[in-house]
Amino acid sequence: MTLWDRAKEIIPGGNCLVSKRPERYHPRNWPAYYFKARGIQIIDRDGREFQDFSTMGAGACILGYSDVEVDCAVLDAIKCGQSCSLNCEEEVELAETLLALNPKMDMVRFARTGGEACAIAARIARTYNHKDESLQHGYSGWHLGNPEHSYRSITFDDLDNQIRAAEPFAAMVSYIIMEPVRNHPHRSIRLMKEAQKYANAYGIPLIIDEITAGYRCNLGGWHQLHGIEPDMIVYGKAMGNGYPIAAVLGKREIMEAAEKTFISSTMWSERIGFTAALATLDKLNRCKVAEHIGTIGTAVMTIWRETADVHGLDIEVMGIPPLAHFEFREDPDNAKMTLFTQEMLKRGFLAAGQFYPSYAHRAEDVAAYEQAVSEVFADIAAGTVVLEGPPASKGWRRMN
Amino acid sequence: MTLWDRAKEIIPGGNCLVSKRPERYHPRNWPAYYFKARGIQIIDRDGREFQDFSTMGAGACILGYSDVEVDCAVLDAIKCGQSCSLNCEEEVELAETLLALNPKMDMVRFARTGGEACAIAARIARTYNHKDESLQHGYSGWHLGNPEHSYRSITFDDLDNQIRAAEPFAAMVSYIIMEPVRNHPHRSIRLMKEAQKYANAYGIPLIIDEITAGYRCNLGGWHQLHGIEPDMIVYGKAMGNGYPIAAVLGKREIMEAAEKTFISSTMWSERIGFTAALATLDKLNRCKVAEHIGTIGTAVMTIWRETADVHGLDIEVMGIPPLAHFEFREDPDNAKMTLFTQEMLKRGFLAAGQFYPSYAHRAEDVAAYEQAVSEVFADIAAGTVVLEGPPASKGWRRMN
Repeated sequence: MTLWDRAKEIIPGGNCLVSKRPERYHPRNWPAYYFKARGIQIIDRDGREFQDFSTMGAGACILGYSDVEVDCAVLDAIKCGQSCSLNCEEEVELAETLLALNPKMDMVRFARTGGEACAIAARIARTYNHKDESLQHGYSGWHLGNPEHSYRSITFDDLDNQIRAAEPFAAMVSYIIMEPVRNHPHRSIRLMKEAQKYANAYGIPLIIDEITAGYRCNLGGWHQLHGIEPDMIVYGKAMGNGYPIAAVLGKREIMEAAEKTFISSTMWSERIGFTAALATLDKLNRCKVAEHIGTIGTAVMTIWRETADVHGLDIEVMGIPPLAHFEFREDPDNAKMTLFTQEMLKRGFLAAGQFYPSYAHRAEDVAAYEQAVSEVFADIAAGTVVLEGPPASKGWRRMN
Repeated sequence: MTLWDRAKEIIPGGNCLVSKRPERYHPRNWPAYYFKARGIQIIDRDGREFQDFSTMGAGACILGYSDVEVDCAVLDAIKCGQSCSLNCEEEVELAETLLALNPKMDMVRFARTGGEACAIAARIARTYNHKDESLQHGYSGWHLGNPEHSYRSITFDDLDNQIRAAEPFAAMVSYIIMEPVRNHPHRSIRLMKEAQKYANAYGIPLIIDEITAGYRCNLGGWHQLHGIEPDMIVYGKAMGNGYPIAAVLGKREIMEAAEKTFISSTMWSERIGFTAALATLDKLNRCKVAEHIGTIGTAVMTIWRETADVHGLDIEVMGIPPLAHFEFREDPDNAKMTLFTQEMLKRGFLAAGQFYPSYAHRAEDVAAYEQAVSEVFADIAAGTVVLEGPPASKGWRRMN
């Protein structure tokens, strides 16, 4: 029995993060466990080496694995004690840093996971305006949009209708929460603007969830690039380069409601999360990381498009360069994408339909990846490779 | 303006954990921030040194601050990469370890904070039996018992009545969640047994929340000492000696419902939490930590009782040795307890009504504490000391 099979017997689903399950990529061949990770290089438990051209830790490791500056800051925090009955001043320093990057926000609360941060934002909004309903677009963590929350999900096409028809409903809406972008940037921009209009018209707090998009195009968030003025913003994932930290920012009037309810947790006060975020934000800024990952992401999207053209493969390239995505247009059972992953693994790449570039991806890595994609697309087009085992599950997909 | 005053302007409440706010101890003199913590020794930002006879990181640091074995295990995890697109095997190892300590449990899910873990347990139970109501006794995190959760709180005295009268309600109850002990152990045991009876009679999953009590008397939890057989158990706090980690254990039939809903988070898969918990559990077991902290806690409870008797102070000592607590019986505005804290601070001790002993507390530390308590109780009894500034807020108190 493999370790992954054993894991599934004692952990529902095998692990606690859906997007790290081998079944989502190549059920038989995707390596379930790593031993060591540095830069974009991963050594798995069997000593095999891979270059990560997938999601770099589900989008968390924007600087690359084991970033030396972030890790050194964390080691200092550990050396001085990462937990105590007293507070660490890094909490205040991080709050100041985030507010400087978001000059229209006034106050900050922290958590250790993005799901928590979204739930905190929702609780603060509900305490602020004593309303129960909400509008949600996209994925904002496992807490929201579930049996514990009454909610309605906005879809791209019906917001106009809602604005016209929803006045009685609008009076019950506590907040609108939305991811600013995922696969369809133009539609996302339009939707954000509509949501802003709706929020303004009815006095509903607009929460922008920058957990996935944040820090990839700039230091504030994708919404800042498009003139959106939210009432609250949520950050997570890349903020600590893999160390658990998440934040809720908001306007003073709303955020002060946090003290009229009860939002508190022991682990939110430990030092590593704040320290890692301070070091990550500093490096993101100093090294112009957004620029670098934009270049890398653009290069990879171009490789997908041009290589598919050369070999006559019908693919759709989506997303924005730092959150790049492609699909085979005719691939109902996921066999083609699984085959792509299978053949890329043989060439030493973790690769599937999503690519989140990091600061550790260099031009020569992209060149090696291009060579591999070219070989694999040629093989898929020629039908000279066959799937070893079942295809990846389509499984859960985020909205948008 | 102090850093704490500045913090309150940009973080609602000043920090993210209510029990680390100076207002809860001595608004003017309690040090808000630490620089370094090791063993039970804390150096604050102004270079002052204190011995921690309060809660050791809100109950998290059961081995003492900067425990060398836990920290070394964490450093190894960081050296090998604490985050990756693949899973770390420590997740499975920790699941195996927890199940070995809880032989009647079958499956495990992890989170990074206790609040999350309780919310996960609640979600799994609700998905399992499709019911909405719940019964809660004690504090089980900021998620539960709040506007987002319909709930009823059990009180000590009405459970018998509920069992007689509540049959129509019982059919709607998804789960009972309770803390096994806090200030009144005998009542807690009686309540657990009643809750077990109620749970069995109506087929309701019983969730025991060992976040605060767990690992202090044994490696399973306080409930194990009293023959309680829960359907789910939640652990957190001391489990990682201050590093964020929390767990939900349960019977297979119930836990499998986790895969029928959506419970997933990026930060739940990082390596440090699992690593720290494995090292902590190993040391708890190897060094018989529960025995040690029981001895230390008993000594401190005795010091409180006997010294108060000597000086004619009317105090009530409560709790269990590893979660010791005392109050001045006539202290409506908290002035006496604040005075106690104030005078103990002058003698180099962080001290208030709660004491959570750790493995780092040695007999000579207790002797020094005894000397200080003796002096301070004498001064309070003689009325020779006055409060410098306002008393501590009673603020939020946990139930029980």
